[in-house]
Amino acid sequence: MPDPSPSRSPHRIRVDDPADPRLDDVRDLNRSDTRPDLPGGKGLVIAEGALIVPRLAGSRFPLRCIVGTPPRLDALDDDLASGDPAARAAALSVPWYEVDRPVLAAAVGFDMHRGLLGVADRAPEPAVADVVAGARTLLVLEGVGDHENIGAMFRNAAGMGVDGVLFGAACADPLYRRSVRVSMGHVLRTPFAHLPGTTTTWQRSLDGLRREGFRIVAMTPGEGSVPLWEAMAHDKVAILVGAEGPGLTEHAMRAADVRARIPMAEGTDSLNVATAAAIAFYERLRF
Amino acid sequence: MPDPSPSRSPHRIRVDDPADPRLDDVRDLNRSDTRPDLPGGKGLVIAEGALIVPRLAGSRFPLRCIVGTPPRLDALDDDLASGDPAARAAALSVPWYEVDRPVLAAAVGFDMHRGLLGVADRAPEPAVADVVAGARTLLVLEGVGDHENIGAMFRNAAGMGVDGVLFGAACADPLYRRSVRVSMGHVLRTPFAHLPGTTTTWQRSLDGLRREGFRIVAMTPGEGSVPLWEAMAHDKVAILVGAEGPGLTEHAMRAADVRARIPMAEGTDSLNVATAAAIAFYERLRF
Repeated sequence: MPDPSPSRSPHRIRVDDPADPRLDDVRDLNRSDTRPDLPGGKGLVIAEGALIVPRLAGSRFPLRCIVGTPPRLDALDDDLASGDPAARAAALSVPWYEVDRPVLAAAVGFDMHRGLLGVADRAPEPAVADVVAGARTLLVLEGVGDHENIGAMFRNAAGMGVDGVLFGAACADPLYRRSVRVSMGHVLRTPFAHLPGTTTTWQRSLDGLRREGFRIVAMTPGEGSVPLWEAMAHDKVAILVGAEGPGLTEHAMRAADVRARIPMAEGTDSLNVATAAAIAFYERLRF
Repeated sequence: MPDPSPSRSPHRIRVDDPADPRLDDVRDLNRSDTRPDLPGGKGLVIAEGALIVPRLAGSRFPLRCIVGTPPRLDALDDDLASGDPAARAAALSVPWYEVDRPVLAAAVGFDMHRGLLGVADRAPEPAVADVVAGARTLLVLEGVGDHENIGAMFRNAAGMGVDGVLFGAACADPLYRRSVRVSMGHVLRTPFAHLPGTTTTWQRSLDGLRREGFRIVAMTPGEGSVPLWEAMAHDKVAILVGAEGPGLTEHAMRAADVRARIPMAEGTDSLNVATAAAIAFYERLRF
């Protein structure tokens, strides 16, 4: 329901016309991930809902604006007051566009029951060396093309002590809206970087990790693999997972120090890649 | 592309009109899970795609028909010839409606790129005692209302040696189309049954499991829990998980023998319920 009471924060700006250009950052959200007009053809970083918007505000991504219905903005005010002061300061430095739910629906292109959006610019990635420095456990992805799986892996990584994520070749963009949502905002917090190289050369970066003391554990149900619980006892571990279906490339498996499997029942399908990675993170919690 | 060649199997029946009543079993699939005209108001059991349709044919659910595009039916013929003979016999005992892709899309209500459907009647559940008999590891659910989570749990259960699933109160229907799909058909294979009682009384059935020698392990991040790896060393284990968000009820936790947690990083969200259950199944693989 629209709340007719005046804005509680001076940075709130009421917008009643869905065509208002101030709502352009959230226009047509189902297509907003691909933006030929922006650097790299990629969209802005979009956070949805009361849990994730404050995480975006507290992240390294430069906040542009917040858009929400009056009750959601009221609730955000309260949440920020009791949360991370840096997130609150960042949030209060940008305009908050106050819209009624039908106006929001008309602008974003669908009824958004969460009623709250945060928008930020993309930011340069940290250097690979900065992601690696100080880490004990890393996740390395190859060919993971599914945004939900990537988001789920960030969520689980954050929950189970994984320090950073490195992307090999042929992975989907972790900052797509769906990844951000499924990650519960952790893709905005957990450091990640892309390794250089093509589908057949990126694996050379794994040698660099090894020189930094990491044991490279390739998750694969295939031949020559040991049960996962035999693979994780090492000071520093990089967990390497590949796409569902094809799995890791031979190049990647040859670049690993050990191949590890989740002992599965005969004749069943392999696990979803995010589930398999979560189990590896769990196993790593013992060490 | 439509394949103009004649059907290879005598049980194939060409249907060119999307309004043909022979396609009623697959009509308007996005609404087909709720069927006031069928017993219990629940829909038929629908399997989608080349992986799951043969699993439906080989299951305890009485097959009604198969619907597919000509190339998909050709492929199904081949798959059945090299697979489970009982599944093949069941499949060959029902009509196969051969439809071109636009006809299929018009009947089901959306473009179905998998191009193959199997339909079965619901069947009575096995008795709880039959699910429990001979099992070493059971999954027990309370209040899990998300069809994808239920499907994912069946998929993971099948892969990691869980023998059966018992439903406490307030769970979603495991035979919804989305559950069947996400389970990769394992909801059609792994035995399951519903425990009697209301949201506050169903937990009494856990005493019956205990009398059968099961240790009841409640998954909860809350107080009084031990790390998961301390909870699973027992001949028979029933893994009890609750809804995301609220988690298990106090009634359920009090009825358990031990509370177990996945040791999470401070200040992070709990895991998705299907992910948490998968980790419990994995831990159980050691014993």
